[in-house]
Amino acid sequence: MLIDGKLISQQVLDELKIEVAKLAVKPCVAFIRVGEDPASVSYVSKKQQTATELGIESRLHVLMDNTSENDLLKLIDAFNADKNIHGILVQAPLPKHINENKIFNHVSPDKDVDGFNVLNIGRLCQEDPSAFCACTPAGVVELLVRSSVEIQGKHVAVVGRSLIVGKPVSLLLARKHIHGNATVTLCHSRTQNLPAILRTADIIIAAIGSPRFITANMVSPGTVVIDVGINRVNDPSRKAGFRIVGDVDFDNVAPLCAKITPVPGGVGPMTVAMLMKNTVQACKRQNSNT
Amino acid sequence: MLIDGKLISQQVLDELKIEVAKLAVKPCVAFIRVGEDPASVSYVSKKQQTATELGIESRLHVLMDNTSENDLLKLIDAFNADKNIHGILVQAPLPKHINENKIFNHVSPDKDVDGFNVLNIGRLCQEDPSAFCACTPAGVVELLVRSSVEIQGKHVAVVGRSLIVGKPVSLLLARKHIHGNATVTLCHSRTQNLPAILRTADIIIAAIGSPRFITANMVSPGTVVIDVGINRVNDPSRKAGFRIVGDVDFDNVAPLCAKITPVPGGVGPMTVAMLMKNTVQACKRQNSNT
Repeated sequence: MLIDGKLISQQVLDELKIEVAKLAVKPCVAFIRVGEDPASVSYVSKKQQTATELGIESRLHVLMDNTSENDLLKLIDAFNADKNIHGILVQAPLPKHINENKIFNHVSPDKDVDGFNVLNIGRLCQEDPSAFCACTPAGVVELLVRSSVEIQGKHVAVVGRSLIVGKPVSLLLARKHIHGNATVTLCHSRTQNLPAILRTADIIIAAIGSPRFITANMVSPGTVVIDVGINRVNDPSRKAGFRIVGDVDFDNVAPLCAKITPVPGGVGPMTVAMLMKNTVQACKRQNSNT
Repeated sequence: MLIDGKLISQQVLDELKIEVAKLAVKPCVAFIRVGEDPASVSYVSKKQQTATELGIESRLHVLMDNTSENDLLKLIDAFNADKNIHGILVQAPLPKHINENKIFNHVSPDKDVDGFNVLNIGRLCQEDPSAFCACTPAGVVELLVRSSVEIQGKHVAVVGRSLIVGKPVSLLLARKHIHGNATVTLCHSRTQNLPAILRTADIIIAAIGSPRFITANMVSPGTVVIDVGINRVNDPSRKAGFRIVGDVDFDNVAPLCAKITPVPGGVGPMTVAMLMKNTVQACKRQNSNT
């Protein structure tokens, strides 16, 4: 019943490791982190560690919290021009004085392993298979596919309309594709009668960013639930003083589900794996003779 | 009960005419038509006529049916470079040997008054207000707004997932905007239980391209129905031998509706009006001192 994201992401990583070993050029991904937000530090560190395990080179450039938008743009220019860097990831969220979309759109579309550049988003809409797709949405689809969840013809309710998860995952699931062809309802903070809508869904994808928001009354028996949320909640019993919970009230929802992802250990590891996949893809395209 | 697209589009055109008269530069839109498809001939002719009425210059370049993709791309290059042309529209559908997305993506994003360039589609996803939005989706939203149909929080079912209508109208209606904030379900040929889903909708947007596909059993009392379909069906009683019907079985569905658009005279005229609006916008941006 539990969809094991750790196990499935490891399958993806094992396949990628074999692919990387065959390449004449070692893939290289550059990370840019602005400031010392603990979650961002932890995410980037995990991504670097996974890259190393796969034989992918990684670089990390840390900028101060008060870095100007212009300085960040210049750093991206340098990485865009550097032929030894195949993928670039600017870790979100960025400080408030920086326009995130402007930054994402400045990353060369060919190195946009995060899939947030406006051109790659447009390509996703056009169902262009060359689009780099955002890692979390791609990871959600990969989880469903590798868990043998039928997507075609099913009614999927996506909760949350972010550019990072909700919208691209909706586009991916609705496209004309063996891993698409779903009927997708995009729900969000302004949705009326959310429980009634969610109860009609075969698959629920929760990407709200609100701890345990999806409760048992919103889920019909037999539903597949994918929990994208990664929320820190206070927990004095833990050494760190917090623990990670998803957007789904797991304890009460899980007994109803045909399948469900845990948090942590569900979508999170898939996001990292899909980033590696995009990086390998970017390297191959930029060295098309390898 | 009837949403009068002719009347509402005339309001938009009247407003634009005043705006055009104030401009120091006369807006100019270039049309490219490939072949002599009767519907395309009729659409382009209508668009040119409306442009003239508004004081917008238009040019028409007709290519043979067997024109190569490359020759079409070269013509677009010339129009992209011509400072006297502010907007470019390549009338779809194109012959089978031509890749439509490749053509659409070749039109300069700044002159893409049709809104099909990949960059403008990506901008729409990013909710960037500078995006040129495809004319039919923009026309649908304008019709709803000017008919005082509340969109925010409502459940909209869009039937048809084309890049020209279904997907962009879904994105428009779901965005964080006073004319958006709807919960959107994107339905299509692979949707299971379409009637049951449509019966839960407050607003139905039919963009399937199949005559009278939406029948009374699919529509709950009080629904607002927007019919995007323009289908030719045989009608020996007509001189032309055909007549135009929508995607909705109007005679049986209309009595159930709170509001409904007729075909013709609903969305069609709005598409033309929004094209004019985009052209004026393009001209203003390209001559930002006017």
